[in-house]
Amino acid sequence: MKKINAAVVGVTGYTGMELVRILIAHPGFDLVAVTSRSQAGKSLTELFPFLAGTDAEMLPVTFPDPELVARDCHVVFLAVPHGTAMNMAAGFVNQKVKVVDLSADFRLRDVKTYTEWYGVEHTRTGLVQEAVYGLPEIYGSEIVRARLVANPGCYPSSVILALYPGLKQGLLNPEGIIVDSKSGVSGAGRAAKTGTLFSEVADSFRAYSLGRHRHTPEMEQELCAAAGQELRISFSPHLVPMNRGILSTCYVYPAGDIKTERLRMVYKEFYRDSPWVRILPEGVLPETRWVRGTMYCDLGFVLDVRTGRLIIVSCIDNLCRGASGQAVANANLMAGFDLELGLKDLPLMP
Amino acid sequence: MKKINAAVVGVTGYTGMELVRILIAHPGFDLVAVTSRSQAGKSLTELFPFLAGTDAEMLPVTFPDPELVARDCHVVFLAVPHGTAMNMAAGFVNQKVKVVDLSADFRLRDVKTYTEWYGVEHTRTGLVQEAVYGLPEIYGSEIVRARLVANPGCYPSSVILALYPGLKQGLLNPEGIIVDSKSGVSGAGRAAKTGTLFSEVADSFRAYSLGRHRHTPEMEQELCAAAGQELRISFSPHLVPMNRGILSTCYVYPAGDIKTERLRMVYKEFYRDSPWVRILPEGVLPETRWVRGTMYCDLGFVLDVRTGRLIIVSCIDNLCRGASGQAVANANLMAGFDLELGLKDLPLMP
Amino acid sequence: MKKINAAVVGVTGYTGMELVRILIAHPGFDLVAVTSRSQAGKSLTELFPFLAGTDAEMLPVTFPDPELVARDCHVVFLAVPHGTAMNMAAGFVNQKVKVVDLSADFRLRDVKTYTEWYGVEHTRTGLVQEAVYGLPEIYGSEIVRARLVANPGCYPSSVILALYPGLKQGLLNPEGIIVDSKSGVSGAGRAAKTGTLFSEVADSFRAYSLGRHRHTPEMEQELCAAAGQELRISFSPHLVPMNRGILSTCYVYPAGDIKTERLRMVYKEFYRDSPWVRILPEGVLPETRWVRGTMYCDLGFVLDVRTGRLIIVSCIDNLCRGASGQAVANANLMAGFDLELGLKDLPLMP
Amino acid sequence: MKKINAAVVGVTGYTGMELVRILIAHPGFDLVAVTSRSQAGKSLTELFPFLAGTDAEMLPVTFPDPELVARDCHVVFLAVPHGTAMNMAAGFVNQKVKVVDLSADFRLRDVKTYTEWYGVEHTRTGLVQEAVYGLPEIYGSEIVRARLVANPGCYPSSVILALYPGLKQGLLNPEGIIVDSKSGVSGAGRAAKTGTLFSEVADSFRAYSLGRHRHTPEMEQELCAAAGQELRISFSPHLVPMNRGILSTCYVYPAGDIKTERLRMVYKEFYRDSPWVRILPEGVLPETRWVRGTMYCDLGFVLDVRTGRLIIVSCIDNLCRGASGQAVANANLMAGFDLELGLKDLPLMP
Repeated sequence: MKKINAAVVGVTGYTGMELVRILIAHPGFDLVAVTSRSQAGKSLTELFPFLAGTDAEMLPVTFPDPELVARDCHVVFLAVPHGTAMNMAAGFVNQKVKVVDLSADFRLRDVKTYTEWYGVEHTRTGLVQEAVYGLPEIYGSEIVRARLVANPGCYPSSVILALYPGLKQGLLNPEGIIVDSKSGVSGAGRAAKTGTLFSEVADSFRAYSLGRHRHTPEMEQELCAAAGQELRISFSPHLVPMNRGILSTCYVYPAGDIKTERLRMVYKEFYRDSPWVRILPEGVLPETRWVRGTMYCDLGFVLDVRTGRLIIVSCIDNLCRGASGQAVANANLMAGFDLELGLKDLPLMP
Repeated sequence: MKKINAAVVGVTGYTGMELVRILIAHPGFDLVAVTSRSQAGKSLTELFPFLAGTDAEMLPVTFPDPELVARDCHVVFLAVPHGTAMNMAAGFVNQKVKVVDLSADFRLRDVKTYTEWYGVEHTRTGLVQEAVYGLPEIYGSEIVRARLVANPGCYPSSVILALYPGLKQGLLNPEGIIVDSKSGVSGAGRAAKTGTLFSEVADSFRAYSLGRHRHTPEMEQELCAAAGQELRISFSPHLVPMNRGILSTCYVYPAGDIKTERLRMVYKEFYRDSPWVRILPEGVLPETRWVRGTMYCDLGFVLDVRTGRLIIVSCIDNLCRGASGQAVANANLMAGFDLELGLKDLPLMP
Repeated sequence: MKKINAAVVGVTGYTGMELVRILIAHPGFDLVAVTSRSQAGKSLTELFPFLAGTDAEMLPVTFPDPELVARDCHVVFLAVPHGTAMNMAAGFVNQKVKVVDLSADFRLRDVKTYTEWYGVEHTRTGLVQEAVYGLPEIYGSEIVRARLVANPGCYPSSVILALYPGLKQGLLNPEGIIVDSKSGVSGAGRAAKTGTLFSEVADSFRAYSLGRHRHTPEMEQELCAAAGQELRISFSPHLVPMNRGILSTCYVYPAGDIKTERLRMVYKEFYRDSPWVRILPEGVLPETRWVRGTMYCDLGFVLDVRTGRLIIVSCIDNLCRGASGQAVANANLMAGFDLELGLKDLPLMP
Repeated sequence: MKKINAAVVGVTGYTGMELVRILIAHPGFDLVAVTSRSQAGKSLTELFPFLAGTDAEMLPVTFPDPELVARDCHVVFLAVPHGTAMNMAAGFVNQKVKVVDLSADFRLRDVKTYTEWYGVEHTRTGLVQEAVYGLPEIYGSEIVRARLVANPGCYPSSVILALYPGLKQGLLNPEGIIVDSKSGVSGAGRAAKTGTLFSEVADSFRAYSLGRHRHTPEMEQELCAAAGQELRISFSPHLVPMNRGILSTCYVYPAGDIKTERLRMVYKEFYRDSPWVRILPEGVLPETRWVRGTMYCDLGFVLDVRTGRLIIVSCIDNLCRGASGQAVANANLMAGFDLELGLKDLPLMP
């Protein structure tokens, strides 16, 4: 297989680290450049000693220079903050480099909504319309042809996969959906902050950003597309003392009288071509460790007959399926590779 | 202060352990008997080496003999499984021993509901009517005169304190309430089970018993009493990789147009005599570690203006406020002591 | 009891937080001032929401002003970095305020050693000679009369209590001692650092500062005093993914033919007046959770007959016995209070 | 590649689970049989839902029937308790099935020592002499020709790799070695025991089996072979609240005047053909997470010039390198495959 040169811009955070972990072992991509403003000058192994002995151990971490990166690479992964990503992405696209942007900059098709939730003016509104939302199960065919993929947020990945098929098929009522999500701490990033120190998080549990988390409009955009009507979601994120994983407990009313067997059938049919969405059997509920380090999205269904509510529980790995693994899956499609290439790891249990 | 003799029946589990921790340091009770079927013959320190050097270190763990216990004690704490507790409680009441039952046997006033959810016939239906539900903020005056107190479940303690005042004052809509709760692992008990081994729980997160947890009818009973009408709750428990703590995220629609300031005022007024319910200010959400080892119940309020939903977040320590500490608070009232006696520990942070 | 006014200078870190937790509930001290350079202007509850509802909830956090503090307080706890503490301590002593310094500034009697290990010149060498090393079991009578107490480091507290009696009585060989210590993460402080983020520490284990940790000369100073001869310790600290606790595994050769029963007798005799040092029986090894939140130091003894080595395992809570609780114990003695006043909490288990 | 049929006997524990995880993804082995006394009758996915969607999801878990297994398989992994394994192994060897035994039954060449430490008579003493100790870096050429490989214990794997080269080259003094090891909880197995419940282990730390752990004679056997003389090790295992990983802190005196650079050179030379032993540079100490889920053994060296002691810190993943991954590496050699086949995963970080 002829390898395609790839770069990671912004390698020091957890999504950068996870990109590197996946790309080093990837049979189709050759990781030729990694950049970091703060860590430039080190080798990749000096930055991440756990990569000693791998092919990329001596790769230099360089200061980000888009010209240089564009000269060497055909695919670039942007793991930089929102606001920074939009201009970088535009630059690379102009130089015919395919871009997977892990920031939020191109996820929302409505730039007014973007500015409202992120507090930043969008400077590349034209590109926003062109960018493809990178959820392979839903936008696979567009991703194949895309120049720029907006890689989904971690929470939206878990929630959209859980609700999209049911809303699309008219089996779920789009009104009054509640999503109560719980994330591991790596989702909060690798920047030094008191709030995510071990002793501020361990042996404890908390909610945060209730009713105002920035991933809300992203979920609403996609689920609205599924339902074919406007909808609002009550989204409540929580912080779990664990490294990786998101579990979303989704509360929704069925559109009519429906059994969970029927739902399972519909979901299995919807995801029949996806190697990663696993519909768990009756009586089995997902656990985040079952998807640790993988692209799997596990879905469990419970119908609460007393209240008539349907509960869909969704588990993903926030760093792999919720960020870097999904980015590589998108790059696979953009590069003409098999969707699963380099993404077949089994869950690390326990 | 003249001390009152107390016994713990069923000392080996986490609630028994927590009762002992509190009672040894209690100025009003003298812990004179602790029993266990499996550990009889040891001293308390052989069973729990962390109690070495305390007043009760040499207390013998005895095989449970109700006659003996009744002869020596005026108050008994039953930390035995449901089904076992009902007959024991009756025996002690007959012998004029005051009983705080930590099992579920006397929590549900409707024995049919009890049998439905617990799969056990109730053999002491008369006592069920007499038993007082041991939530001091709501039933304080009845507890003072009670012979038998049914100590609330851990989840219901967190949920009822969060929703009772709002429903009572007609500020919350009793329809369609959702409670998404998250508990530390000590809530699953101290019996040897593969499912709660460290490596089955650590660094992971899961839901369980969705729509069918036994604490559901208990919440409904009390919140129905508050609302003055029937209501059904969607209750979803989850397991957090932490030792202690419950956080309940409660979703409810306000009964009309209401601001969170007003809610805070109403709640503060309702709990004005309670030393333990803390209404957090706007913008602050509770964390389980803030109540670790204490009787506190911390409540945070968020109004999601986009969806019109009110979110009340409630945190307690499942072993202290959710079980043994509350049991001692009830015994304090039954014994004529100050409610807070022996229960003034500050949270252990971090 | 007439209360004595006390201040905590440097309240934002974990030792400051722990001092506040203990002092609020203390029957002899009145916490009248808490200071912080970065958090001045807040109330104590705004800084630490877990203190809501306590006596000190409205206490203002002020910018440190030694004059003001000295005017109001008779005892001051310094929870500021080494180097900063020395001048502050001198200022307070001059104004007749008793000082417990939790930094390292007055622990080492030899200022040359201090400068060697801490890289700071000592500006108050006179006070160094006067300061008393605050380990109550060993220097209790000097502490009673002290104006300035140098509160021991966390690791040294666990190690000195484990080895002092044996060396003092000539039962242990002072040559070739190895101390392999393991600490919870709160020992690394509350400053924002990538290295102690949850996801850098959780589900992992590491050693650090092998052979060069600054607590080494402190242990050697005290154990040399016990042995009556020079000695060198190999000291290896490690980081455990837990909040609180230190376990030190001490390897030492007995001075002659000795049984562990005899050692236990000697240690019990040495610590007969200490309410906190617990000599565990044969076959029982300490666990850090058994001392969580307390002043206990649990010691277990194993004689490895195959190698002739004695292993003494010591457990303390690094924040309570290893820092703030011990500081309060020292202040108790300085104030003429009972040693244990306000320090009788039982371990929080689990 | 022609695949070789393989079986896992005893699949329900953590080593069985890890074997399955590795073998399903292995390009050379076809996992055709998994057995369990307690779980026979289920499919592999019913037993381990995290394996849904993989090639082996429908594999039936069968009651162990050596005849059947021998008929279908060329390699068998025994993940059963010691005592049980010895006869099973003999049976398979007789039927020309190659055996990797993960129990302790064939690790000790001296059956008297085996009986002393394990309390079991050995019934297959002939096979003991034939079995090869399965540490590929040391016994690779024997393993290639072996019919029966005794897979090393987890602690010995970490310790022997750390000390063997230095002792072999005469750079380390074989007298007075101390090994202070710390293991994740998965090492304690998956059987339901109170002592390894989450709430007995989390947020705590303890030592156990000091001076009498069964892995001691195994280390001594191999290190004695390296040193060419008798030696005794003080071995102290501890339990870390994490899932996977072992860190061993090894204390040893250099045989003469030596620098760590020289040691690193000697170790690198010794391990020049091993893809997995990583000698960390000066100033870098290993962390268990850097080897999570992999075959890596990371070694860090510190010379404590004050005491003249050398400290070698060794990290492995106890389930992968310390058990199942190493078993597969041995099977690779026995099957004529490349040592690394199917064992190239990078560490899962964080």
